[in-house]
Amino acid sequence: MIRLFLCLSLIWMTLPAYADPPVAIAIHGGAGTIDRGRLSDEQEANIRAALTAAAQAGHQVLAEGGSSLDAVTVAVRLLEDAPEFNAGRGAVLTFDGTVELDASIMEGATLAAGAVAGMTGVRHPIEAARRVMTESPHVMLVGSGAEAFARSQELEFKDPDWFITEFRLQQLRAIQAQPQTATQLSEDWFSTVGAVALDAEGNVAAATSTGGMSNKRWGRVGDSPIIGAGTYADNRACAVSATGHGEYFIRHAVAHEICARVRLTGVTLAEAAEAVINQVLVEAGGDGGVIAVDPDGNISMPFNTPGMYRASIDSEGQLQVAIFGDE
Amino acid sequence: MIRLFLCLSLIWMTLPAYADPPVAIAIHGGAGTIDRGRLSDEQEANIRAALTAAAQAGHQVLAEGGSSLDAVTVAVRLLEDAPEFNAGRGAVLTFDGTVELDASIMEGATLAAGAVAGMTGVRHPIEAARRVMTESPHVMLVGSGAEAFARSQELEFKDPDWFITEFRLQQLRAIQAQPQTATQLSEDWFSTVGAVALDAEGNVAAATSTGGMSNKRWGRVGDSPIIGAGTYADNRACAVSATGHGEYFIRHAVAHEICARVRLTGVTLAEAAEAVINQVLVEAGGDGGVIAVDPDGNISMPFNTPGMYRASIDSEGQLQVAIFGDE
Repeated sequence: MIRLFLCLSLIWMTLPAYADPPVAIAIHGGAGTIDRGRLSDEQEANIRAALTAAAQAGHQVLAEGGSSLDAVTVAVRLLEDAPEFNAGRGAVLTFDGTVELDASIMEGATLAAGAVAGMTGVRHPIEAARRVMTESPHVMLVGSGAEAFARSQELEFKDPDWFITEFRLQQLRAIQAQPQTATQLSEDWFSTVGAVALDAEGNVAAATSTGGMSNKRWGRVGDSPIIGAGTYADNRACAVSATGHGEYFIRHAVAHEICARVRLTGVTLAEAAEAVINQVLVEAGGDGGVIAVDPDGNISMPFNTPGMYRASIDSEGQLQVAIFGDE
Repeated sequence: MIRLFLCLSLIWMTLPAYADPPVAIAIHGGAGTIDRGRLSDEQEANIRAALTAAAQAGHQVLAEGGSSLDAVTVAVRLLEDAPEFNAGRGAVLTFDGTVELDASIMEGATLAAGAVAGMTGVRHPIEAARRVMTESPHVMLVGSGAEAFARSQELEFKDPDWFITEFRLQQLRAIQAQPQTATQLSEDWFSTVGAVALDAEGNVAAATSTGGMSNKRWGRVGDSPIIGAGTYADNRACAVSATGHGEYFIRHAVAHEICARVRLTGVTLAEAAEAVINQVLVEAGGDGGVIAVDPDGNISMPFNTPGMYRASIDSEGQLQVAIFGDE
């Protein structure tokens, strides 16, 4: 009898971690050509610390029973504030030396979504995208109209100079010193930020935020604010946030394509994400990657570039932080 | 011997219509709540004439061996100029009484695509979208940047007043006289324009152009300029142009979803388009419809509203022009 009791106790003690519904989060800070020699030790340490902080902050929301929507918002806000990444403060500069920001967010339970594009001055574009989703009848607002909406929502604004870092100024000067045809196409680093999460209710969500492409002109918008291209979330399949050469991600509707393959063909999330990133996009010449999570807590983070800034905390609570392709 | 010759001649005479590779075109001028009593005989005649002219102009391009991209461009340009439709001249007015135009275009052979959103002053927004596709490294340009690009391409601009019709002024006044919550959601007519075509080379293309939603604010953008939502073309599946309550079409990535179902599950175009419009969107509460064509020349034009302005010339040269659901 005592043996049985001890045995049952032992079983019970191992149960909670598995009996709780799974939660999981993954984040990215961009994908591209990144060699170990290119980052200083200090830069690399700062980037890993920022990725860790964002993943942990989002995971804490989930661990406390919060929604995946809140988790991805919290994580992306931190990445927007971190000057290391191309979103919010520290975003790349346009041809005219300004900062124009894009963001989008989507929840998998309802397919509700919000997006802003070509917006300036809002500290946390992901917050603006979320308000479009929850406080307007619309999905996408662009330009000065998006700013006016953000003001009506009393979101935090910053002066234009607050967003601009010395690094981005130098980067723009270097790009603009090249011949013009090269400047628009030679981008080898697409440092969008994003997050995907699964909460204890079984709901997935995705969020993406970016300053777009260095030296961009004419109000160019990439995939990040496009629902279906840079961001998609559907409880029947998965949540996806993309980073890469946005034009290719739009043409192939990458985020929706991955979810559609899972939903319509029954392949696993990993199979769908791998095929789209490492077959479809590689054949098309589109560089980049995605982070994705499904309602079972499976995480997939494929990329076809040498590196992708990424971090995740999986359904067993394991933290992973990585930059290069071989780690 | 003579009998055999006559017999072969007879067979030969019936062949050309079938032996030529099929070409086909379908166009739309919007979907919504349209009752027979609501249109005057003159209005109805004007609309049918404009739809007929656009379908025939696009078909002529195809019949002469032109590309599907040229065919959809020619058809949409005519619909943009026609004041009856919500695109180009005669587009609906924003909350501020201005005209803000969106358009997108895509070719199925290469998945090349172009889009403009929140643009003012350009007579033919579809031409601007096409130039984005062919003359820039980008897919989507928004706002004043899109206008600057259009000027750099020497596209035709018109004064703001040129776009505004007396009908749209009255429509805006009527909407703004209602309580505000109603005005933004009570839209019962989504008169985007669009075209899809198959050319003799077997290439499909799609194009969509719109003024968006009456009384829209904050730079609202609907599905029309979103590749994957309002427009998609893929030679492996079909070409789709949508019209409807854009927010729902974005959330469900309608144009890409229809192509994905054809490509991934092997259903026919008609089955895929019907399911998305009359099941998925009906369950979600999203009003609207699509026109679609596949590489075999099959045309599908489902809608879940009482009417959709539409016309097509199928692979046997048959012209169909219709407005109401029962014709």
